Amino acid sequence: MLLCDVGNTSYHFLDGTKEYKEDVKTFNPAPLHEQIFYICVNPNVKEILKELKNWIDLSSHVDMLHYYETMGVDRIFACEAIENGIILDAGSAVTVDLVKNGVFGGGFIYPGVRAMSQTYKNISKALDYSFNFEIDLDKMPKNSADALSYGYLKLLYNEVVAHGMDIYLTGGDATLFATLFRDAKVDETLIFKGMKKIMKKADLC
Amino acid sequence: MLLCDVGNTSYHFLDGTKEYKEDVKTFNPAPLHEQIFYICVNPNVKEILKELKNWIDLSSHVDMLHYYETMGVDRIFACEAIENGIILDAGSAVTVDLVKNGVFGGGFIYPGVRAMSQTYKNISKALDYSFNFEIDLDKMPKNSADALSYGYLKLLYNEVVAHGMDIYLTGGDATLFATLFRDAKVDETLIFKGMKKIMKKADLC
Repeated sequence: MLLCDVGNTSYHFLDGTKEYKEDVKTFNPAPLHEQIFYICVNPNVKEILKELKNWIDLSSHVDMLHYYETMGVDRIFACEAIENGIILDAGSAVTVDLVKNGVFGGGFIYPGVRAMSQTYKNISKALDYSFNFEIDLDKMPKNSADALSYGYLKLLYNEVVAHGMDIYLTGGDATLFATLFRDAKVDETLIFKGMKKIMKKADLC
Repeated sequence: MLLCDVGNTSYHFLDGTKEYKEDVKTFNPAPLHEQIFYICVNPNVKEILKELKNWIDLSSHVDMLHYYETMGVDRIFACEAIENGIILDAGSAVTVDLVKNGVFGGGFIYPGVRAMSQTYKNISKALDYSFNFEIDLDKMPKNSADALSYGYLKLLYNEVVAHGMDIYLTGGDATLFATLFRDAKVDETLIFKGMKKIMKKADLC
């Protein structure tokens, strides 16, 4: 039995305790014959997978009562993994979601590292800097590189810590954000944990 | 005598009390014969203007002691206009700068409305929403449109108001941000005020 979380850029597999990724552009899911339980936010891949009988979409098994219809299924399954806390999933977008006593309490969407960096660069060539995740957040910057890093990171940091809850970091850039959120728990398998919980509830394992 | 603040996209003129803008792509500054005091952040336009004798660059008249070398000259001149407060200049970028007792206290750079909207859209077609400047900032969102608006606006709002200073809004999107920062002063001529102050100090008027 395999688990798979399909994002905009990759298939993220969990095989027992082994994790690996395949590129959405090049990976062909059809030759796999074992049973694969998945969630998918990528509309093109979704069309392919629904034709494959051994690929089982878990999204229909979630109780949507506390979520909203257009909410990304990856955010929903990350929320299902925890009882209390704030989840920061750092991928092409950064999604931040609150869970209180097992119930989704709202969330927001922010650009991911690569997207935000590209945004600054597009505004002006003078804004072509890498983000400094070790920036001193207590001082208003007096240089260009920190002026961008502060704009991107301090604003996000303040909002996330303001809720005073345990912080969970997941997604491809989780370790990068761990430099900023020093007390956060990094868990790149959070979505898989949510998937397993849902499978148990639905008697699928 | 004309004043002109040249940005990445337009020449912003002040003629007495009359303001107007010309597009950087189409406007030819050479036929103007009167004296024009200007600042310019656009590197291409800068090359053109330095060849024109009646165009006088004010940037060299600023005491740079409290600023930093790569800081945009428009930010510097906005800071020169006030004694105490936090300035939000909303153009292609949003720049936020602190001034305490007439001294620059640091600042940061954030994407402008159009740039940020494009960023979300580029991440996913599912994130193609206009920002809601009337969003309720006290609630974590439970719908996609607000999840983006909150990500862009709440994070900025929190940081700006946290300094507890008078807020000055300037730039092309100043009135849009006035919906969010209800107690802020909107002043689209802030940079011109800074320019006039510098001209007085330098005995140019």
